[in-house]
Amino acid sequence: MDLKLFDPKSVFLSNLIGQKGMLSFSTFNFKAASLNLSPFFIRSYKGASHEAACLSTSSPDGVSLVGKEQYGVETHTYRYDGSSTNFGSSILFREKRVLDAFDDEYGGVVVNPEKLPSDTDVFVSILRSSLSLWRTEGKKGIWLKLPVEKCDLVPIAIREGFQYHHAERGYVMMTYWIPDEPCMLPANASHQVGVGGFVMNDKNEVLVVQEKHCAPELAGLWKLPTGFILESEEIFSGAVREVKEETGIDTEFLEVIAFRHAHNVAFEKSDLFFICMLRPVSSDIKIDDLEVQAAKWMALREFVEQPLIKGDNMFKKIIDMCIARMGKRYCGLSVHKVVSKFDNRLSSLYYNVVDDQRLGCSSHDSCTST
Amino acid sequence: MDLKLFDPKSVFLSNLIGQKGMLSFSTFNFKAASLNLSPFFIRSYKGASHEAACLSTSSPDGVSLVGKEQYGVETHTYRYDGSSTNFGSSILFREKRVLDAFDDEYGGVVVNPEKLPSDTDVFVSILRSSLSLWRTEGKKGIWLKLPVEKCDLVPIAIREGFQYHHAERGYVMMTYWIPDEPCMLPANASHQVGVGGFVMNDKNEVLVVQEKHCAPELAGLWKLPTGFILESEEIFSGAVREVKEETGIDTEFLEVIAFRHAHNVAFEKSDLFFICMLRPVSSDIKIDDLEVQAAKWMALREFVEQPLIKGDNMFKKIIDMCIARMGKRYCGLSVHKVVSKFDNRLSSLYYNVVDDQRLGCSSHDSCTST
Repeated sequence: MDLKLFDPKSVFLSNLIGQKGMLSFSTFNFKAASLNLSPFFIRSYKGASHEAACLSTSSPDGVSLVGKEQYGVETHTYRYDGSSTNFGSSILFREKRVLDAFDDEYGGVVVNPEKLPSDTDVFVSILRSSLSLWRTEGKKGIWLKLPVEKCDLVPIAIREGFQYHHAERGYVMMTYWIPDEPCMLPANASHQVGVGGFVMNDKNEVLVVQEKHCAPELAGLWKLPTGFILESEEIFSGAVREVKEETGIDTEFLEVIAFRHAHNVAFEKSDLFFICMLRPVSSDIKIDDLEVQAAKWMALREFVEQPLIKGDNMFKKIIDMCIARMGKRYCGLSVHKVVSKFDNRLSSLYYNVVDDQRLGCSSHDSCTST
Repeated sequence: MDLKLFDPKSVFLSNLIGQKGMLSFSTFNFKAASLNLSPFFIRSYKGASHEAACLSTSSPDGVSLVGKEQYGVETHTYRYDGSSTNFGSSILFREKRVLDAFDDEYGGVVVNPEKLPSDTDVFVSILRSSLSLWRTEGKKGIWLKLPVEKCDLVPIAIREGFQYHHAERGYVMMTYWIPDEPCMLPANASHQVGVGGFVMNDKNEVLVVQEKHCAPELAGLWKLPTGFILESEEIFSGAVREVKEETGIDTEFLEVIAFRHAHNVAFEKSDLFFICMLRPVSSDIKIDDLEVQAAKWMALREFVEQPLIKGDNMFKKIIDMCIARMGKRYCGLSVHKVVSKFDNRLSSLYYNVVDDQRLGCSSHDSCTST
């Protein structure tokens, strides 16, 4: 069958992914970012907290915001590119200056982070006239990425009504929502993603580690190799990497057995933790001295009966699934690399493999009870 | 069987989650945050980029960092609580002042965001003497949360060697890694999480929507309800909410059918998108006028044969799974609320339900091929 899902179909949602796409640029591909659209996965951003974030435009010290009422900006503007050394400060001239920026496809403006003025007085003047112009032009969301070397501009942007959106090591991203309507700007990243590797050999031994420094109450415990996936890393390769780094054992990813979703874990963000079944393809352990105190192959029975972890409901469920999976009585999700025509993006789709020749799936309550 | 996984066992990893836990505080529970530990899911943070982030302590304008060589700080210090109005500026006095903060359990320091000085000269002085003290005390990671109303302190912290870690609407979090060794501070959130709802009634009709504003190239398309989950929202409830908001249809969550992992989507972050199977428990459509142009029950065949989405490999796989699931030939992951003793945290574990009475799982290649 030729069957497909999802009909992306709106400026409302396209706005969001469009702006998202546009913002996934480094300082070196300012314009190219607009190609990074993902219409098939367009989604709506809703929620009172985010709307409140965008609608609240009062600055913390009570400085009033600059609108078209205060600054008449001519249509013919001078686009500031940061290169002028004799930049006049007359009101007449100031009103014409606009920050170097490009319009996104969805009614917003993305300021060029490479062409920001360094002088704070120049910046406040141009920022005000820019906002005034964008307001008269009916622009919506303004994206202002301030590189760390322009950190002096942060307090100015805050006082002009910008809000923090997110920050990475090299910059802070600030936003300003102009319209008198609910904000449609996408939210910041919301989750950390971790992986744990369950590796069992043909002797029914599980690969376990003891970390370098042990909290007293956890003395003597052996654990599975775990870690956070790196930036832009796959879940399947992150699990393999963690096991390799901590134990020296090479593995092949088989399946995601289960995942756990928890909230308010780090920085009030949420956490997704994927338990992965891996197949060992080597056996000689070589530990990472920096992180791991010891690693070994441990009899499954011995591993799970350690006093300090015995009796925990969550881990009983998880190990039950892993054991069932080893006995081919459980199915997790395997990974498949796919490209969708709608965003030309290579991504990883995790799902069970359905074999039409052998229907049944009788081992799962969830399939037969609905 | 009484079987469990994971043996958390190290200061190395405990450090990370410990600091994570400590940082999940608002400005109203400064001290209580240290309770928010999650030792069972402790994971290691690795990767050259993050280490580089922490090890690079030069400030952008070349101002040298302040160490113990420049400021001799007495052991008996005056802890600045932001309340003094006659704060002296003599060198002798300045050297004794330290920012109000508490030590975390893992060798780091968390500055109290409620007791920061407002005066920039006072702040730079106290920050320097604080760093000097913490250095002599052998402290590791310093966490400095600057509320938006203290935005004037951001450039100062940058010049003193702090780096942006992350930002939310109300604050920017900055960090400083003191030791001459790889940084162990946890990274910022790395993922957005979205959901899509596949809802089919007993007439083989799929619930679909057209968004309010339609990009020209996508004219005429019908799509599944989709959206991003809200802060601290569950995947299962987020999918139900999105469907309700966009179509007015009440549903019950059944399973996560599959999920897609993509990278460099928004703000160079990664994206996890969960396709959820929902069961309708109402039938009368009432659209959200703000977002949705139209919604309807659409014959499955008509839905999947829409010209604009026909032939896309990814969506063929997804709809095949949904159809197989409707025919009970596919199993996704159902949700189970669990509490682990190790963090006393209620969280959601997604997995297949194994029924020991009916083993087999013969419909899955992934189970029988390994």
